[in-house]
Amino acid sequence: MVPPSDHTRVVVLRHRPQGSPRPEDFALVEQPLAQPVAGQVMVAVADLSLDPYVRSVLGSGHLAETALPLGAVVPGRAVARVLDSQHPTLGPGDWVIGETGWRERAVLDGDTLRPVEVVDALPRSAVLGALGMPGLTAYAALERHLRPRPGETVAISSATGGVGATAGQLVRARGARAVAIVGTMEKAADARGLGYDATVVRTASEWVDDLARVCPNGIDGYLHMSDQQTLDGVLAHLSFGARVSLCGLMDQYNDGPRTVVDAGRIMSARATVHGMVVYDHQDLAAAHRDEVARLIGNGQLRLHEHRSTGIDSVPTAFCELMSGANRGKVVVEVTTFT
Amino acid sequence: MVPPSDHTRVVVLRHRPQGSPRPEDFALVEQPLAQPVAGQVMVAVADLSLDPYVRSVLGSGHLAETALPLGAVVPGRAVARVLDSQHPTLGPGDWVIGETGWRERAVLDGDTLRPVEVVDALPRSAVLGALGMPGLTAYAALERHLRPRPGETVAISSATGGVGATAGQLVRARGARAVAIVGTMEKAADARGLGYDATVVRTASEWVDDLARVCPNGIDGYLHMSDQQTLDGVLAHLSFGARVSLCGLMDQYNDGPRTVVDAGRIMSARATVHGMVVYDHQDLAAAHRDEVARLIGNGQLRLHEHRSTGIDSVPTAFCELMSGANRGKVVVEVTTFT
Repeated sequence: MVPPSDHTRVVVLRHRPQGSPRPEDFALVEQPLAQPVAGQVMVAVADLSLDPYVRSVLGSGHLAETALPLGAVVPGRAVARVLDSQHPTLGPGDWVIGETGWRERAVLDGDTLRPVEVVDALPRSAVLGALGMPGLTAYAALERHLRPRPGETVAISSATGGVGATAGQLVRARGARAVAIVGTMEKAADARGLGYDATVVRTASEWVDDLARVCPNGIDGYLHMSDQQTLDGVLAHLSFGARVSLCGLMDQYNDGPRTVVDAGRIMSARATVHGMVVYDHQDLAAAHRDEVARLIGNGQLRLHEHRSTGIDSVPTAFCELMSGANRGKVVVEVTTFT
Repeated sequence: MVPPSDHTRVVVLRHRPQGSPRPEDFALVEQPLAQPVAGQVMVAVADLSLDPYVRSVLGSGHLAETALPLGAVVPGRAVARVLDSQHPTLGPGDWVIGETGWRERAVLDGDTLRPVEVVDALPRSAVLGALGMPGLTAYAALERHLRPRPGETVAISSATGGVGATAGQLVRARGARAVAIVGTMEKAADARGLGYDATVVRTASEWVDDLARVCPNGIDGYLHMSDQQTLDGVLAHLSFGARVSLCGLMDQYNDGPRTVVDAGRIMSARATVHGMVVYDHQDLAAAHRDEVARLIGNGQLRLHEHRSTGIDSVPTAFCELMSGANRGKVVVEVTTFT
């Protein structure tokens, strides 16, 4: 049920999640929506991206200083369409990408939005995934940290998620072997569909042996977006001179114990461990877009999206993402345009 | 009391140390000494180097596979003088450096020994410290991992030991600020004597505040050779883009808990953490010797040695090293030459 045009539905934070978030931690509420004034536009959110990093601003004990206030709209990035504009260069019907938050409609400063270029035959949501921040994260981790050489083995945890699916396909495009570390058999099947050379299910009891078997020469590069146990298993199989990029700390997002890296393993492998935050690598954005668009164009890179529909599906979709129940980059189609 | 010429005194491992080694874990015994055969030399050990890495081969539960057998002579590197030679290029009176072990005299394959070049006015033991492996460790950590730029701040733990004292002085020679992290007030005084810009005593209750005060712009480089608490304190004050070189894990040498690096700190500082083992960096040996010899020559680098005399002082000197009671690079003058 769409609210009147001077109102919009939004998702706000109701309770600070304890551990993994639950749908009840959020509330769908109706809020008044002002008309845009000079420089502003009103947009309808089309595809909303849900990403693990958002969990950290939802806060809890030790993060409370930077936490989102209770009752505030949860932040998020989306592809949106301009409905009404008081901005000099944006007009009704334009497609844009920006920080809309978890809303159906938003009034935003037009200067904070970027136009979405339509790439032939690609869904607009590609700019939230392989062509967007998750894709740039994967690209920068490879270019700046892991630097796989042909024939090397790169392991990727959360291997079928927004960052991981792109990373695995970029690794293969560089002539290296990509090994997927995933949480379920279903995701292992997804990983094979994405072209990974081998898959390991980290929830299996003998998974570290499985990992050793599919990485007989050790792991040359590792993109970490998972939990402590996964990190420890990989560190035990690093090759000499291995590179590790710490990109996501799933335990800590969910208020678990701090993730730690075994110093003895780093020393014995002569490894290098890097902290990865995508905002530092915006200088690679053009090179990233060129390579990913080319690979998508020639069929070497597939999008892997987990889609749901409607603003009311957002809390559940986010909670599934944070518990690993998603299958691919999580996108909610908040408003359907035909 | 010197044994007859067909015998020598040696230090053997009596018990596997539990935690920090104690002098009773070792025994001074007399062993027969064969005459050298073709290719061998008999040497008298002059200056014996004692180094923390030796602790790991003394073994304990989980390291037993690679551990020294009980009753075996403890390994170690020394400057020695040739007494008798069946080697084509070494003759009596020559000074050499090599792996003699903890002995007064040794019969060794001459090809495993390197001649010691006498550098003007430098004690021969310099090749065990600033001009030797500890010095190369410091040099390689700076060249390959920490790469200090002028004005940057580099913190060094075990700052007055064999590696640390050289590292601190090399940092200053590169125009960066060197901050010493030491265990006692006496070592802080030593560190000031070595030219460190600031010193912090890590056993003081508020030492992390002290560290923050002397590193107002954060720590750009950190050479780690200490315990978990020291590592955690430094990680909390890394600057953006900091480099960490893991060079020695004092806790683990002494059978303590494994040392771990907080992944969240690495990510928030966008830090890079490297595993440092000197054997990987022999290609830097000539450049290292040139720079250190030049700096010693022009008074910019001082040797800082903790000396004792006689083979019977070796066990106590090693235990002092492993408990941090030494003051500088530990050298035992096993045989005195005038």
